Amino acid sequence: MQEPVIGDVWGEMIRDAYAVRTGVGPRPLAGGRVPRPVIEVIERDDGLINGAPADHYLDEPADWQPHDHRALRLCRGQVLDIGTGAGRTAIELQRRGMAVTGLDTSRGAIDIARRRGLRDVVATTIDAYAERAATKYDTFLLLGNNLGLLEGAERAPVFLSALAKLAKPGARIVAQGTDPYGTTDPVHAEYHRRNRERGRIGGQLRLRLRYRRLATEWFDYLNCSPEELARLLDGTRWRLTSIDLDDKPYYLAVMELIESPI
Amino acid sequence: MQEPVIGDVWGEMIRDAYAVRTGVGPRPLAGGRVPRPVIEVIERDDGLINGAPADHYLDEPADWQPHDHRALRLCRGQVLDIGTGAGRTAIELQRRGMAVTGLDTSRGAIDIARRRGLRDVVATTIDAYAERAATKYDTFLLLGNNLGLLEGAERAPVFLSALAKLAKPGARIVAQGTDPYGTTDPVHAEYHRRNRERGRIGGQLRLRLRYRRLATEWFDYLNCSPEELARLLDGTRWRLTSIDLDDKPYYLAVMELIESPI
Repeated sequence: MQEPVIGDVWGEMIRDAYAVRTGVGPRPLAGGRVPRPVIEVIERDDGLINGAPADHYLDEPADWQPHDHRALRLCRGQVLDIGTGAGRTAIELQRRGMAVTGLDTSRGAIDIARRRGLRDVVATTIDAYAERAATKYDTFLLLGNNLGLLEGAERAPVFLSALAKLAKPGARIVAQGTDPYGTTDPVHAEYHRRNRERGRIGGQLRLRLRYRRLATEWFDYLNCSPEELARLLDGTRWRLTSIDLDDKPYYLAVMELIESPI
Repeated sequence: MQEPVIGDVWGEMIRDAYAVRTGVGPRPLAGGRVPRPVIEVIERDDGLINGAPADHYLDEPADWQPHDHRALRLCRGQVLDIGTGAGRTAIELQRRGMAVTGLDTSRGAIDIARRRGLRDVVATTIDAYAERAATKYDTFLLLGNNLGLLEGAERAPVFLSALAKLAKPGARIVAQGTDPYGTTDPVHAEYHRRNRERGRIGGQLRLRLRYRRLATEWFDYLNCSPEELARLLDGTRWRLTSIDLDDKPYYLAVMELIESPI
């Protein structure tokens, strides 16, 4: 059995989802003739696999979840949308006249975001961007569960210090996370337990994405409780200032920059 | 990375799709709280992966594809629905007052078919059933692309002889297949070419299904042209008597039993 090919899973998937939704570009077909829905496949390192329709990455504001709308109301000044994907939220901010940059590591996703009208885009990692960006930001946006990009106890301080480097005084992070511990599903409860045994955070998922013949490398993606998030901020330049729990298990966390001592 | 567990993928998936559709039984949840759609994940041995929503296995006749309706009009007498799954078509035949048995190798799927009201069900392989069944059949139904169960040149005559053993005089097979060769997708064209190089039929797919932590063993599943089907019938007790190509790339094939010489 051949292994999948490492590549821009996210970009290929977003491109196909865009083609299905708009009719622009070749659409994925079953039997060479019948359009098929674009499904994101997520493998976890315990053998769990899940598929999820990818179309929602292109949803217009009318179809968003309520917490996405509340998140946008927390944005101010110059915004960096991290993991912008097809530009779902960044395009809406731009439409509202805000200054927004969309950042994603996927070149294919950035191509689609640009084609959909997002003007200021950058295809790179947050670390590389922090080294070279001339712009500083007032708001860092991590939507679509992108609080997960903190990964775990090792990566979180590095990620957060890149944001601090890109931050104007008084900057904030607006991030949507998921508290995974409300589950009674034994597959997940067991996964959390084994993670903790290995010194990891319970909801520190080890994942790869697959789409058609492509796969990502395996990476960590964090689902954590607000308490765990607060602990991850210890010793960083960010402090947790509010948690919006209205759409449990999803939440919005606001973190604010601690001013450096003069 | 842990491998998935070999198990009744089909049964678990159908059970969850049934729970989502009816609200009966525990539904699969994201984050322990939010219902998630049930997606069938299909891996091919070239590293290709596809997800497809599983809900259509429970579709009512109003939502069927046209060829399913035409297939049911070709049924007569005592019907054996092979790979009945959740009983989608068998239940409709029963409602029309026909005598129908639903057969599936998945115990979980058969449980759901029974719960949905299908009275005559059997959870076994066609081979085992042919050895022990007292009933003989007038029609063998292979819908939902189940012509694929012919697998390839090795399995097809064995499968077809099991059906002949279960057949009344004048029996027919009504099967829905897919002609895969209309594609211009290089991933599929290359797969067909490599199959032929290895002495396999171009559309002889090597697959496994996955759902959550479960996987099937790898198995062959055949997408073939009507011409290839006709060749597979050579030397068997069945001959191809009609092909309905109205819903290309899908087709309905009718095969009739050749009477044994006295």
